Amino acid sequence: MGRCPSLSRHLEHYDPNVTTTPIPELGRRAKEASRVLATASSEQKDAALLAAADRLVADRDIILAANAQDVANAVEAGSTDTVIDRLRLTEAKIGGMAAGLRQVAGLADPVGEVTSGWVRPNGLQISKVRVPLGVIAIIYENRPNVTSDAFALCLKSGNAAFLRGSSGAIQSNLAIAAVLRSAVESVGLPADSVQLVEDVSREAAVEFMQQRDFVDCLIPRGGRSLIESILANATVPFVIDGDGNCHIYVDESADLDMATNIIVNAKTQRPSVCNAAESMLVHQAVAEKFLPSAVAALEGVELVGDARAQEIAPSIAAASDDDWGTEFLDLKLSVGVVDSLDDAIAHIATHGSGHSEAIVTTDLTAADRFTKEVDAAAVVVNASTRFVDGEEFGFGAEIGISTQKLHARGPMGLPQLTTEKYIVQGDGQTRG
Amino acid sequence: MGRCPSLSRHLEHYDPNVTTTPIPELGRRAKEASRVLATASSEQKDAALLAAADRLVADRDIILAANAQDVANAVEAGSTDTVIDRLRLTEAKIGGMAAGLRQVAGLADPVGEVTSGWVRPNGLQISKVRVPLGVIAIIYENRPNVTSDAFALCLKSGNAAFLRGSSGAIQSNLAIAAVLRSAVESVGLPADSVQLVEDVSREAAVEFMQQRDFVDCLIPRGGRSLIESILANATVPFVIDGDGNCHIYVDESADLDMATNIIVNAKTQRPSVCNAAESMLVHQAVAEKFLPSAVAALEGVELVGDARAQEIAPSIAAASDDDWGTEFLDLKLSVGVVDSLDDAIAHIATHGSGHSEAIVTTDLTAADRFTKEVDAAAVVVNASTRFVDGEEFGFGAEIGISTQKLHARGPMGLPQLTTEKYIVQGDGQTRG
Repeated sequence: MGRCPSLSRHLEHYDPNVTTTPIPELGRRAKEASRVLATASSEQKDAALLAAADRLVADRDIILAANAQDVANAVEAGSTDTVIDRLRLTEAKIGGMAAGLRQVAGLADPVGEVTSGWVRPNGLQISKVRVPLGVIAIIYENRPNVTSDAFALCLKSGNAAFLRGSSGAIQSNLAIAAVLRSAVESVGLPADSVQLVEDVSREAAVEFMQQRDFVDCLIPRGGRSLIESILANATVPFVIDGDGNCHIYVDESADLDMATNIIVNAKTQRPSVCNAAESMLVHQAVAEKFLPSAVAALEGVELVGDARAQEIAPSIAAASDDDWGTEFLDLKLSVGVVDSLDDAIAHIATHGSGHSEAIVTTDLTAADRFTKEVDAAAVVVNASTRFVDGEEFGFGAEIGISTQKLHARGPMGLPQLTTEKYIVQGDGQTRG
Repeated sequence: MGRCPSLSRHLEHYDPNVTTTPIPELGRRAKEASRVLATASSEQKDAALLAAADRLVADRDIILAANAQDVANAVEAGSTDTVIDRLRLTEAKIGGMAAGLRQVAGLADPVGEVTSGWVRPNGLQISKVRVPLGVIAIIYENRPNVTSDAFALCLKSGNAAFLRGSSGAIQSNLAIAAVLRSAVESVGLPADSVQLVEDVSREAAVEFMQQRDFVDCLIPRGGRSLIESILANATVPFVIDGDGNCHIYVDESADLDMATNIIVNAKTQRPSVCNAAESMLVHQAVAEKFLPSAVAALEGVELVGDARAQEIAPSIAAASDDDWGTEFLDLKLSVGVVDSLDDAIAHIATHGSGHSEAIVTTDLTAADRFTKEVDAAAVVVNASTRFVDGEEFGFGAEIGISTQKLHARGPMGLPQLTTEKYIVQGDGQTRG
C-alpha cells in the first residue's frame, strides 16, 4: 500500500502565494482521464474505490494533520462552532468516508445499461446505452468528506471528478485528493481521474464554472450564495441542488394522529436539511381540532402563522410575508389554514421550491389531485418528506437532490451521473 | 369553425412602434396556462391539435396575406433567394403544417408514463412518472412553419409553448399563432398555451432567454450565432441543438462499395443538415484502393484533404487547419488518411462535435471499440449518418437533435419534452 509520494509533496508545498496549476490545464487533464474511465471495467473501478478506502484509513494521520491546520486556521479566524464541527475530521469520520467508498463499490455500475432498443422497418437496429457524462465538476463548501464522497460516485459512473472545495478546507482536501489519486493510479487508472483545484480564490471559483471545453456537468453542494453564484457565472451545464421549502398539507379527511407524527418528524428529526418541512397547511374543517394538539406536539419549534391559525392557537406568532417562502433550516415552521385542497395547491404553487411536498389524507381523490397537480421533484402521500433522499429511495448513495427539471429531478444516484448514447447498427443502409 | 377574433385583431394592430405585451407578462401567462395543460387529457390535447390543423387550412388566406407582407419586406431588404424561399408560405406548405399537427395528435402521449416503481422495505411505494416540463421556450429563425410544429410538440407533451420567431417572419408568425390560440381555446384549453413574443428586437431576444421565473426549458432552432447568443445570455435552462461535424470512418476491413454508398449518401443526399457528413477518414491500408473510386463517386463535391489523401487522389485540394473542425453544410468534404482505428477515434475526439459519427467495417472488434470509445449522441455502424433524426428513429416528430449531454442527447421527441416526478405513497411512515 504505502504512502503516495504526491501526498507529502502536496502537504509540504501548498502555499496560497505559490503559483498553482491553471484551472483549464486541470480540466484538460480531467477530460483526458475521462476518456480512459469511460471504457474502464466495473471491476477496475471497484478496485480503485476499495484501494482508496484502504489508503484513507492507512494515511489517516497525514489527513488528520492536514485537517488540524484547517481547524487551527478556522479557530484563528473566529469561525463558529458549527463551521468548525463540519470541518473537523476524526478517525471515525475518516472511517465513515472509507465505508462510503466501499459502499459505492458495491453498487451496480450504471454504465453500459441498455435503456431501450428497437429495430426500424429498414433493418436498422437502434439501441440507447448509458455512458458516463465525462468530467463532472463539483463545487462544495467546507465538509472535507465531500472530496471522497463525490469522487466515489463520479468514478463508479465512469466520470472524472473535477473538485473545488472551500478555502477553509484546502489542506484537508489536498491530503484526501492525494490519497485518492494514488489509489486510482495503483489500479492502473489515471491519477487525473480526480483533480482538486488548489486555487481557492473567488476568481478561481468563477473560472471553474466556465470550463466549457472540459466540464460536462457542474453540481454544486452548498447554500444559496453558491447557487446564486452559479446562476450568475456558470457557462457549463449544471444540475442544481436547490432549496427545499417543503410543505405538509393536512387535508380535511386526514388521520390527525398520523398528521401529527408526520409533521413532527418532517420538522424536527433533522431540521437543517433540505427535505425537512418548513410549512404546514391545515384544512379549515379540521384546523380547530388539529392545531392545538399539533402545536403541543411541536413543542420547542418556533411557530409563525396566518391570522386563522393564530386565532385557534394563540402561541403561534404572526408570520411575515417572507416567512411563507423561507427555508428556515431550523426549528421554525410556518402554519396556515386553507379553505380547500385547491387553496393548498395554489399556496404551494406560489411558495414552494419544487423539492418535496406532502399531503396527509384518507381521501383518494384528494391524494390523486395533489400528486398530479403539485409540481415538485417528489410528492408524498401520508409519509414524512424526510424520506425524499437517495439512501431512503434505495439508491445506495446520492450526490444531491435536484430541484431543477432538466436531466435529473429529485434524489440523484449513479444513473443521474450518466448520459445516453444511441448506437445505430446497419448493413449498408442509405437514406432515400 | 369560423375565424378567430384575435387573429384579425393581431393583423390589424401589429406595428413595431406600438407597445407590445412585456415578455415577463407573456411568460407569466404561459406558466399559468401550463398548470392547466399539465393535467389536460390526451383527448383534449389531441382535439386542440386537430382543431388547429383544420383552422390553419380554413384560415390559409389570412396567413398567406400576412406572409406576403413578410416576403415583400424581405425582398425590399434585399434578402437572398434562399432566405425568401424559407420564409415563403404556400397553400401546400400550410397543408404540410396542418398534416404535421394531425401527425402529432396521432402520437402516444408521454405524460403519465410510469418509468419505474418499487417498494421500500418500510412499505413506501415509490414511482417515477413522466410529467410536462411546464413552459418550453423556443427561439427560432425565419421558417414560419416552426410556429405550428413547435406548438404541436409542446402541447402534446402538456407544455405551454412560449415562442420567439425572427423579425423577418413576424407577420406570418402572428397570424399562425392567432390561429393556434383560437384552436386551443375552442376545445376549452387556455389560449395562453401558446404565446408569441411580438417584440422582435435583439434586446427582447435576450430578455426572452432570461425568464427564469417562467421558463422551464429553452430550445433554440437556428444557426451558430443564435447558439452563441444563448451561451452568452441565457439564464434559463436550455437544450442545445448544436453543430454536426459528422465523420465517416472507412476501416481497413470495410466493404468498400458499402463505404462509397454511405459516404455519398451522408454527404450529398441533403448537405445542408446537421447529420450530413462533413469529413471522411480512411484507413491507410485501403486508402489507395478506396479513395480514387470514392472521389469519382463524390463528383460535384469539393474535396479538401491531408497530404496522404492528396497524394492518392490529386483532385483533392489541401485542407486548412480549420477545415477539420468546420460544419460545411454544403457540398464540401474533408478527407484524411489515418494509420489506425485509434487515430480515427483520436481525430474524432479532437474535431467532432458530438453529433453523429459512423464507421464502415466488417470487423466486430473495430465496430465494438468505435461504438464504445467515440463520444457522440449517435454512433453508427455501416449506415449513413443521415438516419440520425427523430423521424428516422421512429419518434414520429422531433423538436431538434441535442448535442449536449444533459437531459436529452440526440434526436428529441415527445418524451424529451417532459421531466419526471417521484410519487411516494405511505401509510404514516416517519423517519427514525
